[in-house]
Amino acid sequence: MTGIQIIAFDADDTLWVNEPYFQEAEQKFCGLLEDYLPHHSVSQELFRTEMERLPLYGYGVKSVMLSMIETILRVTNNTARPELIQKTIEYGQELLNKPIELLDGVQEVLEALKGKYRLVVATKGDLLDQERKLNKSGLAHYFHHIEIMSDKKEKDYYKLLKHLDCKPENFLMIGNSLKSDVMPVLEIGGHAIHIPYHTTWAHEMVSHEVKGDNFYTFETISDILPKLLS
Amino acid sequence: MTGIQIIAFDADDTLWVNEPYFQEAEQKFCGLLEDYLPHHSVSQELFRTEMERLPLYGYGVKSVMLSMIETILRVTNNTARPELIQKTIEYGQELLNKPIELLDGVQEVLEALKGKYRLVVATKGDLLDQERKLNKSGLAHYFHHIEIMSDKKEKDYYKLLKHLDCKPENFLMIGNSLKSDVMPVLEIGGHAIHIPYHTTWAHEMVSHEVKGDNFYTFETISDILPKLLS
Repeated sequence: MTGIQIIAFDADDTLWVNEPYFQEAEQKFCGLLEDYLPHHSVSQELFRTEMERLPLYGYGVKSVMLSMIETILRVTNNTARPELIQKTIEYGQELLNKPIELLDGVQEVLEALKGKYRLVVATKGDLLDQERKLNKSGLAHYFHHIEIMSDKKEKDYYKLLKHLDCKPENFLMIGNSLKSDVMPVLEIGGHAIHIPYHTTWAHEMVSHEVKGDNFYTFETISDILPKLLS
Repeated sequence: MTGIQIIAFDADDTLWVNEPYFQEAEQKFCGLLEDYLPHHSVSQELFRTEMERLPLYGYGVKSVMLSMIETILRVTNNTARPELIQKTIEYGQELLNKPIELLDGVQEVLEALKGKYRLVVATKGDLLDQERKLNKSGLAHYFHHIEIMSDKKEKDYYKLLKHLDCKPENFLMIGNSLKSDVMPVLEIGGHAIHIPYHTTWAHEMVSHEVKGDNFYTFETISDILPKLLS
C-alpha cells in the first residue's frame, strides 16, 4: 500500500459503537406499537419510511426520530395515543445523549499513525451530533479535519478530495460499510480498507462481492497497522 | 477596507429568503393549537422548546419540526389529536421543499466579486438542507467552499479560518445577523458587513449597539460593491 498521504476514517461503527444503539432504540420503538403490529412488521414499516424520507431528511438521529413519528401515525391510522410519540422523542434524545464507546484498538491505531499520515474523519449524519460525538470521544486532536458528509457516493468523495487537495491514489478510506466507505472510493481510484462490524444497517448492505487491487479487508482496526507502517 | 482575501456570505436571509417562510410555517402551526392557546402564546411555547432543545438538536428545519411536535404534546398535555402532528410534519416538509428566492442584487454582486476574492458560504442549519438550497439557488459555482456550521460563535469562526487557512484580518463576513455574522467575527479580529433583513428570528436579536473599525452596515447587498471594488 504505497503513496497514501491522507487516511480518512468513517466514524460510526468504525471508531465507536453506533448501530447497536440504533437497534436498541428501534426495538423499544417496535415495542410501542405491538398492539398494532408484530415487531418485525413495525421494523419494516420504519425502514420504508426512512427510505422514503432519506432524500428529504438525510441521515442522522433527527431524521430517524421524524421517520419513527410518521411511522406511528401511518401504522395506527392516526389513532395513536400521544404518549407513543412522547416516548419516541425520548428514545431519540437518549440516542443523542449516549456516551461514546470506542472500539477496541482505535486509540492505539490513531496514536501509531499520527504524524505519519494526515488523518481525517469522513462521516455521514447530523452535523451537530457527529461533532459532539467526536468531541466526546477524546479523539478530535488526532484529526486534521472532520468532514460531515450529506452522503457517501462517488460525487461526495470527489468533493472531499478536491477539498482536501488530494489525488485519489493518495487517499485511503477505512470503514465498516462496503457500500459507503469502500465501493465509491475504489470507483474513483482511491484505496479502501473494510473492517466489518458485527451489525450493519439494512440500508448499508450490499449483495455482491467487492474486489480490487486497492482493497483490503481486516478483522479489526489494529490489523491495518502492519500494512500502513511497513 | 483593505487586505480582504476571503469573503464569506451567510446564506439564509442574506442570499435568499428564509425567515418569512419559517414565520409562515409557524403561523400555520399556531393555528393548529388555537383550541388550546392564543397564537402568541403558542409562539412563545415553541420558542421555549426550541431554546431548550438547541444544544441537543442544533439549527435547521428538522430541529424545528421536532420542537413543534414536542410543543404540541406539552401544550395539549398529551391529548392532541394525531392529525395535529401529521399537519406539523407536512408544514416542515413544505419548508424543506420551498423553492429558492434570491434576494435582490445577490447574483450581480457575486458576479462582480468573482475572481477578485475567494468567495465562500458560511451558514448554520441542516447539512443536507443547506446543500440542497445552495444547489437549487444556482449560485454554487460562485463559491470556492461551503461551510455548514453547527453554530456561529467565536470558536466556530476560529475553526473556519483555520480550515480556510486565512488570517482574521484577511476575512470579511457578510450577513443579516449581528449576533451570528458580525459580533463574533469582529471579536476575533475579522471584518464584518451587516445587511439587515426586514425579519429576524428572536434568537438572533441583540439589544446593544455594535461598533467597530472593521464594521459596516449597508441597506442592500448591492451597496457593498463600491467598498469592495475600489
